[in-house]
Amino acid sequence: MKKASLIVANSEHSADMFYATGFRAPDPFIYFSYGSRKAMILSALEFDRGKTESHQGIKIFRYEDFIKNGRRGMGDVLRVLAKSLKVEQFRVPADFPLALADFLRKHKIDVVARAKGFFPERKFKNEKEIEYLREAQRITALGMQRAEEILRASKLDRDGGLHWSDAALTSEVLRAEINIELIRNGGFAASTIVAGALQGAEPHNEGSGPLYKDSPIVIDIFPKITATGYHGDMTRTFVKGKAPEIVNQAYDTLFKTRETCKMKVKTGVIPAEVHNDAVQMLNDAGFPTGRREDGKNFGFFHGLGHGLGLEVHEAPYLSPRDTTPLRGGEVVTVEPGLYYPEWGGIRLEDVVVVREDHAECLTFYPNKLEVD
Amino acid sequence: MKKASLIVANSEHSADMFYATGFRAPDPFIYFSYGSRKAMILSALEFDRGKTESHQGIKIFRYEDFIKNGRRGMGDVLRVLAKSLKVEQFRVPADFPLALADFLRKHKIDVVARAKGFFPERKFKNEKEIEYLREAQRITALGMQRAEEILRASKLDRDGGLHWSDAALTSEVLRAEINIELIRNGGFAASTIVAGALQGAEPHNEGSGPLYKDSPIVIDIFPKITATGYHGDMTRTFVKGKAPEIVNQAYDTLFKTRETCKMKVKTGVIPAEVHNDAVQMLNDAGFPTGRREDGKNFGFFHGLGHGLGLEVHEAPYLSPRDTTPLRGGEVVTVEPGLYYPEWGGIRLEDVVVVREDHAECLTFYPNKLEVD
Repeated sequence: MKKASLIVANSEHSADMFYATGFRAPDPFIYFSYGSRKAMILSALEFDRGKTESHQGIKIFRYEDFIKNGRRGMGDVLRVLAKSLKVEQFRVPADFPLALADFLRKHKIDVVARAKGFFPERKFKNEKEIEYLREAQRITALGMQRAEEILRASKLDRDGGLHWSDAALTSEVLRAEINIELIRNGGFAASTIVAGALQGAEPHNEGSGPLYKDSPIVIDIFPKITATGYHGDMTRTFVKGKAPEIVNQAYDTLFKTRETCKMKVKTGVIPAEVHNDAVQMLNDAGFPTGRREDGKNFGFFHGLGHGLGLEVHEAPYLSPRDTTPLRGGEVVTVEPGLYYPEWGGIRLEDVVVVREDHAECLTFYPNKLEVD
Repeated sequence: MKKASLIVANSEHSADMFYATGFRAPDPFIYFSYGSRKAMILSALEFDRGKTESHQGIKIFRYEDFIKNGRRGMGDVLRVLAKSLKVEQFRVPADFPLALADFLRKHKIDVVARAKGFFPERKFKNEKEIEYLREAQRITALGMQRAEEILRASKLDRDGGLHWSDAALTSEVLRAEINIELIRNGGFAASTIVAGALQGAEPHNEGSGPLYKDSPIVIDIFPKITATGYHGDMTRTFVKGKAPEIVNQAYDTLFKTRETCKMKVKTGVIPAEVHNDAVQMLNDAGFPTGRREDGKNFGFFHGLGHGLGLEVHEAPYLSPRDTTPLRGGEVVTVEPGLYYPEWGGIRLEDVVVVREDHAECLTFYPNKLEVD
């Protein structure tokens, strides 16, 4: 049976498509490979741009040339393609759109989703990609630095609210300033987290409203770098003023946990074990994980880390579910967090490259809780 | 056969998921409806936040409660769900991930993609959504205004290059300043187009490098508004200095074409006909569409417009393919363009609401080619 590999997606949402083509386009287009041949099918709207902006060695066809008998839908074009290649099976990514697959199957073209990843090699970064990720972390640090500067420069209102640039300092204002700093440096962030006080107890709460002194503010920045498409990812937690004793203790415990876990990361290590070690360390230090009677989660209730690359969250995962030994070239975050509905949250996140006998850290940013 | 509707997606990529839940989450989660019941299944990481941030009336279950016998994959959880609901068929969006559908089918659960759209009603905006889109256009206009201000304030180098704020004014700098203005006003744009001179002849070229006097600069701004998730979309074209005669003529022709086409838009009109009228008008005015001997496209070679809402590009399309009559509440762009490899491109884009007997324009921004 003759087979071809096929992606139909827009490359802003599909990292596989961007990886395959290097071509950014906001609407779905076709990429296929067949033996050693690689090609894209683009509409007139994108054709000329595709020729100059995509990876070398990819042949580019015109969508319009695959339109037969007035049929112009994506499925019709793929039928014409299959016929002209004499292909009986398309191998596609796991997230290939179901309706399109069913259409092709109805017309006797086999469609098989590759469960293990369309480009398994995307997990393993080469040195050029690691350089992109290092640069992404450098730009991300500029955003964090901007946040810290603003917290430092902010004054206190009578009620303990932070005040900056003649206005209340809110999560929204601080997020905007971080994102602006990223834009000025070639990065681009959709949903930077700036979560103060009890909002920080929900790990993905983006944060809203006024920020206050003496309670932790979680700042999680994960921009896409415009030039390369790779992401940075960094979390720090700050207290403007004086941290309560419990927050100080939690911070020190998290810092030690993160550093210990980073030292465990290397080739051959089981991700789930590193995660479980972190849970254990936090628990042993007096920070248990569980669920309150009112149903709220407390402690450390997300994965310790995730792969980082063209996607912010990608394989491998430092989570209880991932038992495939780590291998060199994988790049993962290490980000233990502690979240308590009584006082808020803390998370500290670095990025490391898995090397043969150690983890190389790509994050260079101080870990200091209190900001004067 | 007992049926339930099902979405498995992250709500940053899937507009259907955001429409269904109002909940923003970066990783895939489960939404289902069954009779009049609506529910989400969230991991511990998102559970507490989901309860406060999602639409009212949606019940929220814990992912962990659907884990049986150590099986924790998304497919396993859906099998448990189907069994507990006694459901034999899931109805899913067209872009439902193929691998997950095949897994469920293997386990005797029927999965049917809704080809005509999961929420056909998303095409038809209610007055609240139209208000969101009006606000989005207002914020988009602030970005355009910033761009025009900078072009106005820029000086000319000896070689005709634009100079601003002690440096060469490039596409990258102007794009960053536009995006910063959007961020300050609650908008968020990933890929604003600032394409000068011949780059403008490729409709989706984002633009790079220095900008020059006396040639058209296409500026296309399409931010997502953070508060609502709805998009603005606006294109204007400027010349710093004096436009060549051909550019002036093309601009006037495009402006007339856009205004004429906007007047045609109303309930009952066939989108393809409005598109074809635009092609004809441009051709009749001396701006033909075709392909050069070297293969490059020229003239007007994209659709006249597209629906606008939670997605930048969504149904309906003012394109030769869309023959379904327009209906009240649809919101579409009207954006004829002219692109010639010899002198560059011009595009002028407004947004209109389809009303019963007219199109209501949501775009208020002057159309003036030359900037002094």
